Amino acid sequence: MAEGGAYSALKRVLLGRPIPTHLAHHERLSKITGLAVLSSDALSSVAYATEEILRVLVIGGLGVLGFSTPIGLCIATLLALVAFSYRQTIYAYPSGGGAYIVSKDNLGSGAALVAAAALLIDYTLTVAVSIAAGVAAVTSAFPTLHVNRVELSLVFLALLAIGNLRGIRESGRIFSIPTYFFIVMILGLVGVGVWRYVTGTIHPIETNNPVPIGGGVLGTFALLTAFSNGCTAMTGVEAVSNGVPAFRPPEAKNAARTLITMAILSITMFVGITILAHAYRVVPSETETIVSQIARGTFGGRGILYFGVQLATMLILVLAANTAYSDFPRLASIVARDGYLPRQFANQGDRLAFSNGIIALSVFAGVLLIAFGGDTHALIPLYMIGVFISFTLSQGGMVLHWRRLGGPGWRTSALINGIGAVATAVVLVIVAMTKTLEGAWIILLLIPILVLVFRATHAHYHHVASQLSLRGWKGEGPQHSTVLVPIGGVHRAVLQATAYARSLSNDVRALFVDTDPAATEKVRAEWEEWGGGTRLDVLPSPYRSLMEPLLEYIDQLQTAKPHDYVTVVLPEFVPARWWQHLLHNQRALLIKGALLFRPRVVVTSVPFHLER
Amino acid sequence: MAEGGAYSALKRVLLGRPIPTHLAHHERLSKITGLAVLSSDALSSVAYATEEILRVLVIGGLGVLGFSTPIGLCIATLLALVAFSYRQTIYAYPSGGGAYIVSKDNLGSGAALVAAAALLIDYTLTVAVSIAAGVAAVTSAFPTLHVNRVELSLVFLALLAIGNLRGIRESGRIFSIPTYFFIVMILGLVGVGVWRYVTGTIHPIETNNPVPIGGGVLGTFALLTAFSNGCTAMTGVEAVSNGVPAFRPPEAKNAARTLITMAILSITMFVGITILAHAYRVVPSETETIVSQIARGTFGGRGILYFGVQLATMLILVLAANTAYSDFPRLASIVARDGYLPRQFANQGDRLAFSNGIIALSVFAGVLLIAFGGDTHALIPLYMIGVFISFTLSQGGMVLHWRRLGGPGWRTSALINGIGAVATAVVLVIVAMTKTLEGAWIILLLIPILVLVFRATHAHYHHVASQLSLRGWKGEGPQHSTVLVPIGGVHRAVLQATAYARSLSNDVRALFVDTDPAATEKVRAEWEEWGGGTRLDVLPSPYRSLMEPLLEYIDQLQTAKPHDYVTVVLPEFVPARWWQHLLHNQRALLIKGALLFRPRVVVTSVPFHLER
Repeated sequence: MAEGGAYSALKRVLLGRPIPTHLAHHERLSKITGLAVLSSDALSSVAYATEEILRVLVIGGLGVLGFSTPIGLCIATLLALVAFSYRQTIYAYPSGGGAYIVSKDNLGSGAALVAAAALLIDYTLTVAVSIAAGVAAVTSAFPTLHVNRVELSLVFLALLAIGNLRGIRESGRIFSIPTYFFIVMILGLVGVGVWRYVTGTIHPIETNNPVPIGGGVLGTFALLTAFSNGCTAMTGVEAVSNGVPAFRPPEAKNAARTLITMAILSITMFVGITILAHAYRVVPSETETIVSQIARGTFGGRGILYFGVQLATMLILVLAANTAYSDFPRLASIVARDGYLPRQFANQGDRLAFSNGIIALSVFAGVLLIAFGGDTHALIPLYMIGVFISFTLSQGGMVLHWRRLGGPGWRTSALINGIGAVATAVVLVIVAMTKTLEGAWIILLLIPILVLVFRATHAHYHHVASQLSLRGWKGEGPQHSTVLVPIGGVHRAVLQATAYARSLSNDVRALFVDTDPAATEKVRAEWEEWGGGTRLDVLPSPYRSLMEPLLEYIDQLQTAKPHDYVTVVLPEFVPARWWQHLLHNQRALLIKGALLFRPRVVVTSVPFHLER
Repeated sequence: MAEGGAYSALKRVLLGRPIPTHLAHHERLSKITGLAVLSSDALSSVAYATEEILRVLVIGGLGVLGFSTPIGLCIATLLALVAFSYRQTIYAYPSGGGAYIVSKDNLGSGAALVAAAALLIDYTLTVAVSIAAGVAAVTSAFPTLHVNRVELSLVFLALLAIGNLRGIRESGRIFSIPTYFFIVMILGLVGVGVWRYVTGTIHPIETNNPVPIGGGVLGTFALLTAFSNGCTAMTGVEAVSNGVPAFRPPEAKNAARTLITMAILSITMFVGITILAHAYRVVPSETETIVSQIARGTFGGRGILYFGVQLATMLILVLAANTAYSDFPRLASIVARDGYLPRQFANQGDRLAFSNGIIALSVFAGVLLIAFGGDTHALIPLYMIGVFISFTLSQGGMVLHWRRLGGPGWRTSALINGIGAVATAVVLVIVAMTKTLEGAWIILLLIPILVLVFRATHAHYHHVASQLSLRGWKGEGPQHSTVLVPIGGVHRAVLQATAYARSLSNDVRALFVDTDPAATEKVRAEWEEWGGGTRLDVLPSPYRSLMEPLLEYIDQLQTAKPHDYVTVVLPEFVPARWWQHLLHNQRALLIKGALLFRPRVVVTSVPFHLER
């Protein structure tokens, strides 16, 4: 009773209260809350996308920073195209059409596994990049914290991990606050900023710690790199189409409207910030974000509105990281159910599987944050590859979906998705070209490795299933079990284990290895008195080894009775304190290790509970 | 058969061939080989002791380096006193009188535990300091290797660890080579060096990378520090008295002569090197040892004799480190047999216990080498405390030994040991005063911590023994065992586990947790067909938890039958490859974890061997 209670209590603290089956999925999203819950990833990239463009352009000197506006408009057009493409996925997959599912349905398992690998990496980088950018918003406002940005990142990561392990319910109302706060602050910033520009009342911005400014010629490659970087603005656009079933009915229609609203907001904010950066002639800084500089300029210094922008940016970025905390375990669970990931990730009953996903995600994101010094800019090259692989596969899959389905107007639908697929494929090629040497090679290497892991896992489970098949099963099994109790002396734990052994079989033998004749005589005499008539076999050991005589004895027994099982019963001390484990059970562990790979041998530990 | 064979083969590769009981201790040491085997630690300190004195004196400028000679003569006198003191221990403890044993016999367990802690630390530092100094001999000859000294140190450490795990037999003949080679080279160096000095034919030595030279006044504290440092020359002097039983009969007499020979050699070489350093006006260098500089000067550059000295120095230092590889496990084994260290260190039968000692020693020494950058000079302050605590306790114990024993001439014997004890106690105080802030505080903190660990371990084993006592044992034990087989489906592994369960008890119940009515119906039907008549209990699970219904079922069973045992039989997959472990048995592990602390519940895994 007490132990079960303790186990449940522990689980409850770690994982939160269980949800009865009939109550699951009771909360559906309206368009308002749906936008808040599903678009934080897409909207929050406004916080860093413009900056990533400017950081490349600055190599060409201050004169070419203005190129950011045409690049930004290009990306905005792409974003609109992709949003329309995903709008079709919503109607085609009302039960949720992630890149993995769409690829599996239309392109086969190979493409689906590439999509799964790309997405799992994408979610991990969403966490790392969003936290790094969120911390950058904080350190822009409080520059003295800049040196502690890795530590700050890890604190945010730990909070997200613990919160999700305890089970943050995706409560639309609470999640709405940061998203709408961010939308209001950024639209306000853009509005006031443009007005000041038009009326000529802009405040000059002084850049602290500007990044090194080049004076060289800006080639095509650099322009393409700047474009690649800006495409971070497109990340997260697929989230709504994955989450269709979470909407209130009519699900598809509500989701489609939310997607379009999100695209419009995203484009407005991104283009607005990009134009303002140009208007205010902002130079990227090592220690302050572009958004922070623009906010200083627009609102005339570090006032309440300025801090409001920084706070809103930080909050929506943390929220964006949090969305990956539901996406990653959910995808891992789907992939595991298909047999491509270990079963620990598959959701069976309670929340344990999700906890495994949460822990895996946190560890990987933590490694990235530490390895890249918590620097958004250093992480961006790794981010884009996974995102655009999944975009391309998902929309390419949709083209085949329409062709397969046919029906009226299938060509138009296929065309829209086809344009999306081609556009994202082109971006993918550009990203691969410009980013491989900057770190994207890690991802280009990791995706095939992950696919191999998926395949090896699947093959293994498949082989296991065939070995477990009952075809040809003739009910084989032991009729009789000989029970051995290796003893090192005669004491309470040994006698208790022997009594237990006698409850299992009428062929029980205590075994004592003779390494010292005097000790052996003592044990023989004590066994005579206390052994309760159980047979004692003394095994000679010319080399003073405790293990080999035991193994030989079992060999002989198994040779004599080839169909029976041998059960080895060991007393196992269960200490009252953790460190006492170090003081016990080493011999038992060795015996278990030596017998692990032996067929028809079962090793059983009878717990002996120590009181102190 | 095959598995036992594989186990034995693995053990043989790792640990070497076992030694039959009747062949153990067949090799006894002559005086010649005894000197080689037991004095490498003491003699090898000549390689760094002089340098450690000069490194302090140089703070007072080049003019005071000559103070090294009187300090050296002081230490030589002390060494002679201590050697005579230990000579008495040899006769009093012909079975080997380490500081732990002498303290335990004469001063009680408190002092003995302090001695044990000091000695274990001392052995660890012997390994670290000797390897660091051996590497310094190599990098003095080949300065380009200086930057890699930590890596080189770890290579030596790994070689020693592997060699000792495989079981280097303390073969006197092989061990004689480096010791006598070193003695010949150093005596030759001193002889030629003195002759050159007397005849005025010395070569000037140019010091590369000299340490910073001070010009300040040299106070008493600095002189005491220099003296403390020089006392490293005394380390290892106790080794012969620990190893008396290894000598050929008459053991005590042979050991005593060996000790005196060693003391004479040690004093001659140490004083010789110290005087030569003065004569050649050697200045300590960051990258070249004093001995290397003297050898360059004496032999006129980097010729064969120079490299001979460096090679001999390196070899004897590695040999000195190697002696700790037999001392540490032996002492740990004695302390463990007294119940103050975990039983894993106590030698019971085969060499496994020694392997644990070897691994522990290597890990600790490796940590020290890395933490202190493989720098002899940085490690010395930590070294002396442990050495002089054990010296003082050992000789103080001998004084009480003589008083207790009485007999003719006991006062003389007590006086000799008393002088040794007082002398080493004074050095101990000086070392503590001068070295605490330089790093010895670590050791002063570590010794009481280790003593606490010893005491906690002992108290725990004592409590366990009383809980295991058979006083009042009424032969209690289960009469009957209910066997439960939790199943997740109906397949070969489950049926095999069920068959095994039936061989143990006639009360076997398969348990299936109902989280999905359709799956439950399927399992019911399959069980009907394949279950062989074994009872199937379906447990409802409103919260989709797999574990809690199981725990509740066991609770109810135990409440109904409070004296019986419940055996839970789980099929356990034994994969063919290591990584496949990650794909299985998670559920079994959880069940084991949840049931671990429950009285009268035994969890048994029936192995199901996977073929691929």
